[in-house]
Amino acid sequence: MNKKEILEPYKGVRDFYPEDQFVMDYIQSVMSRVCETFGYEHYGASILEHAKLYESKTSQEIVNEQTYTFEDRGGRRVVLRPEMTPSVARMVAKKRRDLPKPLRLYSIPNVFRYERPQKGRLREHWQLNADLFGVKGMEYDGEMVLLAYEIVKEFGANDEDFKIKINSRKVLNDISDSLELSDDTFKSVLSLMDKREKMDSKDYDEKLQSLLQDKKDVFEKELDVAQKEGELVEFKEYLNSIGIENVEIDTSIVRGFDYYTGFVFEMFDVDIENPRSMFGGGRYDNLFEIFSEEEIPAVGFGMGDVTLRDFLETHDLIPEYIPATEVYLVREGDVNINEIANYLRDNGINVSVNYTEEKFDKYKKNAEKIKTPFLLVASKGVFTLFNLEQNTKIKSDSNEDITKIINQYLES
Amino acid sequence: MNKKEILEPYKGVRDFYPEDQFVMDYIQSVMSRVCETFGYEHYGASILEHAKLYESKTSQEIVNEQTYTFEDRGGRRVVLRPEMTPSVARMVAKKRRDLPKPLRLYSIPNVFRYERPQKGRLREHWQLNADLFGVKGMEYDGEMVLLAYEIVKEFGANDEDFKIKINSRKVLNDISDSLELSDDTFKSVLSLMDKREKMDSKDYDEKLQSLLQDKKDVFEKELDVAQKEGELVEFKEYLNSIGIENVEIDTSIVRGFDYYTGFVFEMFDVDIENPRSMFGGGRYDNLFEIFSEEEIPAVGFGMGDVTLRDFLETHDLIPEYIPATEVYLVREGDVNINEIANYLRDNGINVSVNYTEEKFDKYKKNAEKIKTPFLLVASKGVFTLFNLEQNTKIKSDSNEDITKIINQYLES
Repeated sequence: MNKKEILEPYKGVRDFYPEDQFVMDYIQSVMSRVCETFGYEHYGASILEHAKLYESKTSQEIVNEQTYTFEDRGGRRVVLRPEMTPSVARMVAKKRRDLPKPLRLYSIPNVFRYERPQKGRLREHWQLNADLFGVKGMEYDGEMVLLAYEIVKEFGANDEDFKIKINSRKVLNDISDSLELSDDTFKSVLSLMDKREKMDSKDYDEKLQSLLQDKKDVFEKELDVAQKEGELVEFKEYLNSIGIENVEIDTSIVRGFDYYTGFVFEMFDVDIENPRSMFGGGRYDNLFEIFSEEEIPAVGFGMGDVTLRDFLETHDLIPEYIPATEVYLVREGDVNINEIANYLRDNGINVSVNYTEEKFDKYKKNAEKIKTPFLLVASKGVFTLFNLEQNTKIKSDSNEDITKIINQYLES
Repeated sequence: MNKKEILEPYKGVRDFYPEDQFVMDYIQSVMSRVCETFGYEHYGASILEHAKLYESKTSQEIVNEQTYTFEDRGGRRVVLRPEMTPSVARMVAKKRRDLPKPLRLYSIPNVFRYERPQKGRLREHWQLNADLFGVKGMEYDGEMVLLAYEIVKEFGANDEDFKIKINSRKVLNDISDSLELSDDTFKSVLSLMDKREKMDSKDYDEKLQSLLQDKKDVFEKELDVAQKEGELVEFKEYLNSIGIENVEIDTSIVRGFDYYTGFVFEMFDVDIENPRSMFGGGRYDNLFEIFSEEEIPAVGFGMGDVTLRDFLETHDLIPEYIPATEVYLVREGDVNINEIANYLRDNGINVSVNYTEEKFDKYKKNAEKIKTPFLLVASKGVFTLFNLEQNTKIKSDSNEDITKIINQYLES
């Protein structure tokens, strides 16, 4: 590894310089705010988990090919979590007797996948996980969709910018049962449907034919019926009734994880330039089998920062960068600069001090690099305040006046 | 692994249920707020780094015995970062030409050490890292101590609760030079001094004797002189002048990392029950040798959440838990509960809805488990609002009045 290579982050992960971290912080703060409005409590867990936790219910593709698994110095098999659901399920199962019902939890963990980095997919990303435990029913399922919808709206998106597709694993299971498909065949059909969007329709048709043989026509007819009547239609109408109009039934929506048991949903960007699945979730009532005999019903979704940021960029919804530094403070001559900095900080202003003696142009250039709105030059008995955004300056001998001007500008 | 074991987190890491996450969020929000007051900008990086990054400058003990290192599926040697400094140095080195001077950065990353978990030491902890790049001088060094001091004060600590010890690697280097110690001897002396606090003084004396032989007396005399005059005294006086009184010179303060070059400091809890080093930092002007020929002066510190939380608990400074949920909303009979929830949310109130039909006692028990202040029962035409903290109830037919009462209580 040469000196240039060592400057790069590990493949498929990101460095967050202040302007990128600002966007990440913005995204996370919107997610948190809306989750808390719905009474979701913040929780967390380590990225390190026992490998065993993922072996029964997570998608086999993920466990076998896409996890970071290693042995620690004590011989334990450890995984960098590829998703948060097994961790939160573990935490809920452990304290099941003490926890309230319904139990609402959210977290914004980083999760890891060993895969080839590409647009919208990195080896590490952050993902909002909102989950609702201990209760069943359409109103709870509806809340998950509403929460996801409200978050996307809170970012400033319009109903026309995205759409929500709903389906039901239970409906698919019922069809499979009525057609007496074997477990293996059904799993293969689900896996094929999950990839449908990326395939050409002739290819999809042929593969479905080879899996279902003479049952293909009935299968497709049943899917068609589910689209027009029954629980999916009822659920769609409920979602309309709570204010979600941009929702449609799509029986090809499957979601990758094996643990889903009921309704599933997925949100899509509808932009012509970037038409793609953004994120989704659904009901998973059997996951707790890993831990005990008792079932804990659960419903939730995950919303990743990478696809979300793409969506926000596509629709021009990323706010302008605001640095922490509000005033870049320098001195000319013999001035107690710490006293001035203290005074401003005590008045709620964030101050970055340059103690080094330099030419004014250099001060200005550095203040501009930070993107701070103000440069304040303190010399004996007089302050000169430069508003770098408006390219104006004001002189005053009163730190009180200077503080007022700065605070007025920052509040506006 | 049996079903009970699978419920436990991996050894030495923590689950954060909402009440613990609340403390973590509180700690991080105080750290962030104070850092931003001083103009430090938030940044981030992945926990995954190339192993190479740690091989030249990080403490050898940490690299060889305490890192999580593994090979990824592509044969790259990857490390879960044991500390943040090499990552931020890498980021700064990469964009050195575009970055402002001084450059102030902070982050609160999780870092990993493979060691035996014990009080104050876990395998994963979160650590504030505040660093100041591109500048030298006592005023910048002083700012780092002041920033650390102000954070501890912002948590509500008094000057009497902690003390700050300062020393200088440069002073120690100068003494080593004047005594013509070999590099190896000097490193062994530093490593011995670093462990001094945990050793008995006779043992320390004997080991120092065997390392320094006939130079021991001169060495100790020179340390004594540094304590009484010269740059350390000047620095202490400067710290006093900017308002830090609980500071003392202690030439036994070394800090574990090899990369320190100038002043170092460490903060200690002075509680009789818990007298221990909490955290520290110092100047490291040569770390950038890993990346290029050019030096970038740097100074910074790290503040870990585990020792800090111990300190806050010892001094009774942890705030009481406040859940996200402000109102636990239930219905009796045929009521549009979503409309009520919406109204409250639109008025800034966080609402958790229980859609399930249950007995009042069960509603109340679950609301109490969440620790929400209010339980609101909506029945046809009338709201009954229970204040669970004050054990009172109010009836009203106006959602406007109910909203006012809740908001008044929450604001008080």
